Amino acid sequence: MPISAELRHEVAVANRILGHEGVIDAFGHVSLRHPERPDRYLLSRSRAPALVEPGDILEFTLDSEPIEPPTVQLYAERVIHGEIYKARPDVIAVCHHHSAAIMPFAISGEAMVPVFHLGAAMGPVVPFWDSRDDFGDTNLLVVKPEEGASLARALGKHSMVLMRRHGATVVGASLRELVFRAIYSCDNARYLSEAKRLGNFGPLTSGEIAMAQEIYTRPNTHTRAWEYWAVRLEKRGEMPAPEVKSVPKAKPAASAKKTAPKATAARKVVKKKVAAKPRAAKGRKRR
Amino acid sequence: MPISAELRHEVAVANRILGHEGVIDAFGHVSLRHPERPDRYLLSRSRAPALVEPGDILEFTLDSEPIEPPTVQLYAERVIHGEIYKARPDVIAVCHHHSAAIMPFAISGEAMVPVFHLGAAMGPVVPFWDSRDDFGDTNLLVVKPEEGASLARALGKHSMVLMRRHGATVVGASLRELVFRAIYSCDNARYLSEAKRLGNFGPLTSGEIAMAQEIYTRPNTHTRAWEYWAVRLEKRGEMPAPEVKSVPKAKPAASAKKTAPKATAARKVVKKKVAAKPRAAKGRKRR
Amino acid sequence: MPISAELRHEVAVANRILGHEGVIDAFGHVSLRHPERPDRYLLSRSRAPALVEPGDILEFTLDSEPIEPPTVQLYAERVIHGEIYKARPDVIAVCHHHSAAIMPFAISGEAMVPVFHLGAAMGPVVPFWDSRDDFGDTNLLVVKPEEGASLARALGKHSMVLMRRHGATVVGASLRELVFRAIYSCDNARYLSEAKRLGNFGPLTSGEIAMAQEIYTRPNTHTRAWEYWAVRLEKRGEMPAPEVKSVPKAKPAASAKKTAPKATAARKVVKKKVAAKPRAAKGRKRR
Amino acid sequence: MPISAELRHEVAVANRILGHEGVIDAFGHVSLRHPERPDRYLLSRSRAPALVEPGDILEFTLDSEPIEPPTVQLYAERVIHGEIYKARPDVIAVCHHHSAAIMPFAISGEAMVPVFHLGAAMGPVVPFWDSRDDFGDTNLLVVKPEEGASLARALGKHSMVLMRRHGATVVGASLRELVFRAIYSCDNARYLSEAKRLGNFGPLTSGEIAMAQEIYTRPNTHTRAWEYWAVRLEKRGEMPAPEVKSVPKAKPAASAKKTAPKATAARKVVKKKVAAKPRAAKGRKRR
Repeated sequence: MPISAELRHEVAVANRILGHEGVIDAFGHVSLRHPERPDRYLLSRSRAPALVEPGDILEFTLDSEPIEPPTVQLYAERVIHGEIYKARPDVIAVCHHHSAAIMPFAISGEAMVPVFHLGAAMGPVVPFWDSRDDFGDTNLLVVKPEEGASLARALGKHSMVLMRRHGATVVGASLRELVFRAIYSCDNARYLSEAKRLGNFGPLTSGEIAMAQEIYTRPNTHTRAWEYWAVRLEKRGEMPAPEVKSVPKAKPAASAKKTAPKATAARKVVKKKVAAKPRAAKGRKRR
Repeated sequence: MPISAELRHEVAVANRILGHEGVIDAFGHVSLRHPERPDRYLLSRSRAPALVEPGDILEFTLDSEPIEPPTVQLYAERVIHGEIYKARPDVIAVCHHHSAAIMPFAISGEAMVPVFHLGAAMGPVVPFWDSRDDFGDTNLLVVKPEEGASLARALGKHSMVLMRRHGATVVGASLRELVFRAIYSCDNARYLSEAKRLGNFGPLTSGEIAMAQEIYTRPNTHTRAWEYWAVRLEKRGEMPAPEVKSVPKAKPAASAKKTAPKATAARKVVKKKVAAKPRAAKGRKRR
Repeated sequence: MPISAELRHEVAVANRILGHEGVIDAFGHVSLRHPERPDRYLLSRSRAPALVEPGDILEFTLDSEPIEPPTVQLYAERVIHGEIYKARPDVIAVCHHHSAAIMPFAISGEAMVPVFHLGAAMGPVVPFWDSRDDFGDTNLLVVKPEEGASLARALGKHSMVLMRRHGATVVGASLRELVFRAIYSCDNARYLSEAKRLGNFGPLTSGEIAMAQEIYTRPNTHTRAWEYWAVRLEKRGEMPAPEVKSVPKAKPAASAKKTAPKATAARKVVKKKVAAKPRAAKGRKRR
Repeated sequence: MPISAELRHEVAVANRILGHEGVIDAFGHVSLRHPERPDRYLLSRSRAPALVEPGDILEFTLDSEPIEPPTVQLYAERVIHGEIYKARPDVIAVCHHHSAAIMPFAISGEAMVPVFHLGAAMGPVVPFWDSRDDFGDTNLLVVKPEEGASLARALGKHSMVLMRRHGATVVGASLRELVFRAIYSCDNARYLSEAKRLGNFGPLTSGEIAMAQEIYTRPNTHTRAWEYWAVRLEKRGEMPAPEVKSVPKAKPAASAKKTAPKATAARKVVKKKVAAKPRAAKGRKRR
């Protein structure tokens, strides 16, 4: 079941927005449930989200097995995605990250509560998951199916779960809701942290949270914010190139490893982008 | 009553400066009272201020109704602007924002007081408005006329009002004074917050505030700072393109929604800018 | 006594480095004592330091009077420079700023002491000056000769003085020493502030300060750091254009004011830069 | 024994990544043990790491003497590198830095402990070295062999040592492990500092650290992160130019000093880069 080029592009853009807005760095990942086969999800091969190209997006079963035999390296923690999609049929997109904004909460165990209207996008409660509870000492990564399932149980019906000494996982009813929630929950974390040090604070009431959350799950709200983040990407030259057909998928990973000392991998990205511009311009004239 | 292209451009630049200097992100908005019809004001269609084009600027009555039937989405919170213009004939420009600098004050309820000369631009007192006082639980947005009027009462004769768990609204006797006040009140918030944690502090006296405020309401002070912010915008390629006539206003919004997955909206901005450069150069030669 | 184009350029670069490295924003200023006439100093016309062009540099007496009748607006606070040059024959360069790093100290009155080797560049003691002590309530600006003289007395034999609720003034035995000291005293302020909140700290001993300060007043240390800051400027396209002869000095200011709404002033800068590139390339071929 | 152009490039890229990711500013340095002669190491001539070109890399004995008579200025603190390579045969790469993230720890003496999985890359213990213990008052620089040896003893078998009132030194079993450890130990410092102020925190257990550290010393982990940092460099135009043969090494330093007022040194860098692009493109076609 081939995924459309548009959808691959959308997933790549979501990855890059979260990289560009400071939610994800070299690590972390973003997935989307397959729009036609809810028993599958789409996720990049293993690489920094800010670099993901449409051609990097692969298809997985909910047991987090690749549909096609992999020729590239895969994310070790993809069970985070698969186990959440299994447990939560309403979830369409998942992001796992270690953003600087939420790490102090993940480390200290202080509660993240909504303290401004946009913070309500993350919901009234952000539960904690501690890998020690079920598994004792581990390397902290979530790589076994039972670890993913344990995290999914901790997430429960909520929209975000903090992972002690590790990071956070956020879910959404759409890719854009996910991006919106991931970014504004980070803002909420920063403001809450600052406000606590400045003085007393009172969080939103449950009534306020419910009403504000209703606003921030509306697609038109997501569209306004998405346009902003997409243009910021575009202006820095960080928008992924349109997918080029017949590129053998195995090669980029292999050559990246071999030639990285000469930064050829990096240059290739720039080269593609330069090459893509005239083509894009022509395309627009034709329309 | 058509608004001049120059004025539309000035309003777009003010929007973008506040976006670029970190006062506004995807949300927030900036308006100007109509220079010839004080019973009207100018405000962008609903989009992130950093992206506002001169062609996005629309005209509203003080009841916040659009003069022409809208073909695009409008900001939900425009009563903030209309109700303040009604209550304060001296106010020429209004900005509503949720900048990271002021959020800890809006959340904690700690008082914002001027602690350095440029901070005096915000005036001696920054009152608080809490939506709960008059309206109980809401989604925290200011969308009903009576909500805007309540906020305008809290603002009173001051230059800035903090909105509990939401953000701030700033007013000015000119667009440039507004931009100046919005930016330096954010600096004041940051310095005050840091100084409080570092040790004791003593705010400016009321005499110092009055004398410093007199300096920071002078147009030549605003001109110097505006040049700085405008050049910063220009250098990052963020200055709005000159307004192109006969562009059907309804289309950008519609196409942005439809094509956003392919980021065509974003590319269009870049395309315009590239195209605008030779034209601008020619224009300058002719002058 | 005409100032060489090279020297004007060096002063403009110092202004821009301090703008680019976050010491100065729209306000603040940087001056150099005239290399051949110690009874004069060089300072830009009134504009944001990050925008200063070689052609903006004007000559002043130590009473802060312009040598030629001014056709452009001058900084209001230039007595800071004149009065320090009068009181301190060893001082060759002066910078007045309100950087975010030092403001919490200027506001709280907490002592700035060297806490790392490079912090020793600012010397063992950073005295405080409070405009209230000699002048009571003012607008906090230093505009009268007696205010400048009072500040110079507070500076005494030191390298930097904090100005309560206003900012700081830094001096140097050369322009590059000044830039070095201004930047690393800001770093010292940030680290001290963070260290105080993290735990106990012990400052450098007076012996350590004296020995480290000896290192950080050596020209070769300044050269290494200056190259770094200058390349950073260059890479962002922020290096001032080479001075073009026969540009009427009065015009830039006037046109900036008149055309700022259209951002023509900003575009002019960009235009110059674009135009300058081919010329510079040619020049390099000829060499 | 000539070093390959590829290796020089790799060392230059490591320098620039650490500059670009905020670990190093104008000061600090990064070295690599010679791959074929373990009694030698490679280190740049004295200049800001973010500017290092492949042609700047020189060869030193473990007594930190240059193999060839130097025609350029050398880092004063290179004994940090030589003495650690002597004491630790397992160490292949060394970085000395004063990043803003770790300075509050170096100043306050608070312990840096791993508080998230990636923080385990720095190992369970980060010892402190205080120059006062062995040497009393100094200028705080590590310039004598016995100072370097004292620091190496404090480092012991660990991967990172904090230097009181000065900075830190990090070591790695490869250049990429070094870069990875330097960057993520800074992140750990920031998160620990924030978490301590926010509430209680519990560090990783020794079992968790050991297991996580095993992950973060795997080359494929370093490859993923290196690709991310290298592309970021490339996109900002900060990747070093390929080494050009027959450039007299002495000249850059001399001309930098002489012409810095005109920023010719800076322009030269840009010129090289512009010139290098077509060549690089050609080179890729041929391969």
